[in-house]
Amino acid sequence: MKPLEYCNGVLKLLDQTLLPGEQKIVELKNYIEVADAIKNMIVRGAPAIGVTAAYGVAIASKAINTDSKEEFFAELAKVCDIIKSTRPTAVNLFWAVDRVYSRAVSNRDKTIEEIKKLIEEEAYLMEKEDIESNRSIGRFGNELIKENWTILTHCNAGALATCDYGTALGVIRAAHESGKNIQVFADETRPYLQGARLTAWELMQDNIPVTLICDNMAGHFMKEGLIDCVIVGADRIALNGDTANKIGTYSLAVLAKENNIPFYVAAPTTTIDFSIETGEQIPIEERSPAEITHIKGIRIAPEGVKVRNPAFDVTPNKYISAIITEKGIIYPPYDENIKKYR
Amino acid sequence: MKPLEYCNGVLKLLDQTLLPGEQKIVELKNYIEVADAIKNMIVRGAPAIGVTAAYGVAIASKAINTDSKEEFFAELAKVCDIIKSTRPTAVNLFWAVDRVYSRAVSNRDKTIEEIKKLIEEEAYLMEKEDIESNRSIGRFGNELIKENWTILTHCNAGALATCDYGTALGVIRAAHESGKNIQVFADETRPYLQGARLTAWELMQDNIPVTLICDNMAGHFMKEGLIDCVIVGADRIALNGDTANKIGTYSLAVLAKENNIPFYVAAPTTTIDFSIETGEQIPIEERSPAEITHIKGIRIAPEGVKVRNPAFDVTPNKYISAIITEKGIIYPPYDENIKKYR
Repeated sequence: MKPLEYCNGVLKLLDQTLLPGEQKIVELKNYIEVADAIKNMIVRGAPAIGVTAAYGVAIASKAINTDSKEEFFAELAKVCDIIKSTRPTAVNLFWAVDRVYSRAVSNRDKTIEEIKKLIEEEAYLMEKEDIESNRSIGRFGNELIKENWTILTHCNAGALATCDYGTALGVIRAAHESGKNIQVFADETRPYLQGARLTAWELMQDNIPVTLICDNMAGHFMKEGLIDCVIVGADRIALNGDTANKIGTYSLAVLAKENNIPFYVAAPTTTIDFSIETGEQIPIEERSPAEITHIKGIRIAPEGVKVRNPAFDVTPNKYISAIITEKGIIYPPYDENIKKYR
Repeated sequence: MKPLEYCNGVLKLLDQTLLPGEQKIVELKNYIEVADAIKNMIVRGAPAIGVTAAYGVAIASKAINTDSKEEFFAELAKVCDIIKSTRPTAVNLFWAVDRVYSRAVSNRDKTIEEIKKLIEEEAYLMEKEDIESNRSIGRFGNELIKENWTILTHCNAGALATCDYGTALGVIRAAHESGKNIQVFADETRPYLQGARLTAWELMQDNIPVTLICDNMAGHFMKEGLIDCVIVGADRIALNGDTANKIGTYSLAVLAKENNIPFYVAAPTTTIDFSIETGEQIPIEERSPAEITHIKGIRIAPEGVKVRNPAFDVTPNKYISAIITEKGIIYPPYDENIKKYR
């Protein structure tokens, strides 16, 4: 299940705003469309956003019609800034755009056509690496999963949030593929309902047993002893292990600790922001009130009501049992162990 | 704002399934309609359910057409059982039906017409008592609320959940009426959205500042220091203080404790079940999966997905800072102090 596919200057995205009711592919042919698709969450999930952004730069570079390298790089830098301004929290976006841009800059001596080709190659390489990375996260994470476990997950850190296979759902897939009898409880994840619309759908496609619950039920099921571990993805991890992820993650982590349930973060090392010491430095995106007051265009709250809609929260490192990366499992103390993965 | 009004054998309910989009009054003329209205949550909230049920018995008694007292009481007992079977968790339902039934039984020597009149009177008395009780809860609770506080509430324990004024929202109303500058954060409260649809609407009607958030955001705002206390209602309180309330309450209580925020339960003493020692004895209603998979008839989750939908959870007494009743504020140790209110 791949949420994105690039070919000859066209990026095809599975429109995640319409799932699971409709499986529609949108074709993006210029970088403005790519930026809008990220902003409007047609594609979402930190790793998928990163690779989409990289392809966005590739598509943009093809359209830069000049013989002047100075002009080319000036235009390329402008495009990179625009794409990086689409969403503020997931660090993979900045990392991905910077990586393709660096590839271009470090090949400044080549022809413009060659540089355009290299940008495209780099984006393609990142897509391949992401999938390998997720399979590796799955293998490492599977070591933590025991037979007959029920795993709670939040939002969608699945194939749909990456280039394939997923991070948190990658661990779940790996456990399932290795023959373990596991099942999943999926938080519906308001307001955007990634759990109900994407995670439940994705797991059902793979015949992995899944039970859908509302976000506010997770604590109850932990207390009742139905949950054996929690696995979530991440949008940005600070050097000390503090982790920004979909709003609601912090609450799950506190509830897991209170109920002595291990709480795991599964993410590629590209999600680690080595430039920040703690989670307090992570900017939290505030999205439109309409995401809360309306569902599928239908109003569910009083007109004129004031709304807060932070899209992410930060889970302090003390609540995180381990961080599962493609290079291995990182355990506390995170402020000592994360920097080894730089 | 009154969610119910009884007159001459007809119970008028404000249909809470349609709020805030539509303010429709339904008229119930027989007890089957009353039972269905409770089951289908046209009326909801423990105290409102109790008084509705009492009026349901009154309406039913009027329709019992017999000269035989034996037959009358047999029929009345049957009706009471049916009304009590509508929802399992809120103890006020059983308490209210038992109270009107007892009033009838203890006046067995009167004529059937007189007994019918007494049942009606008793239901009316309970309605009046509920409103007085809520104002008293408000007065006591107001002592706990400080100037400039932001109060988080969950579900709707407001006028709409009672006969008027509300329990948790009664405390908030009393604080507002006493001139304190307070504001409210209201959890939307999935799946039925009582917070978005009812609490936000009710507070806006009274010009009490309210901000609507998703359930999974409450912990984040507690951690960020925006919440000064949590006040919720209750559906059943055990002798040791364990409290059943709308699903999600337990999670809020854990998060409040973790963030050193006082967590208050506001409820009349009729919500205390003096017959049970702990919350483990409280049955938790499981409602239809459609409440989660559909919103206003529109599917938001994959077809065939497995769902769990517990309507309530139990908050252990250790997370509750105080229980605000119409007779005063009960503090820990609850197993010693609650029984004094019997």
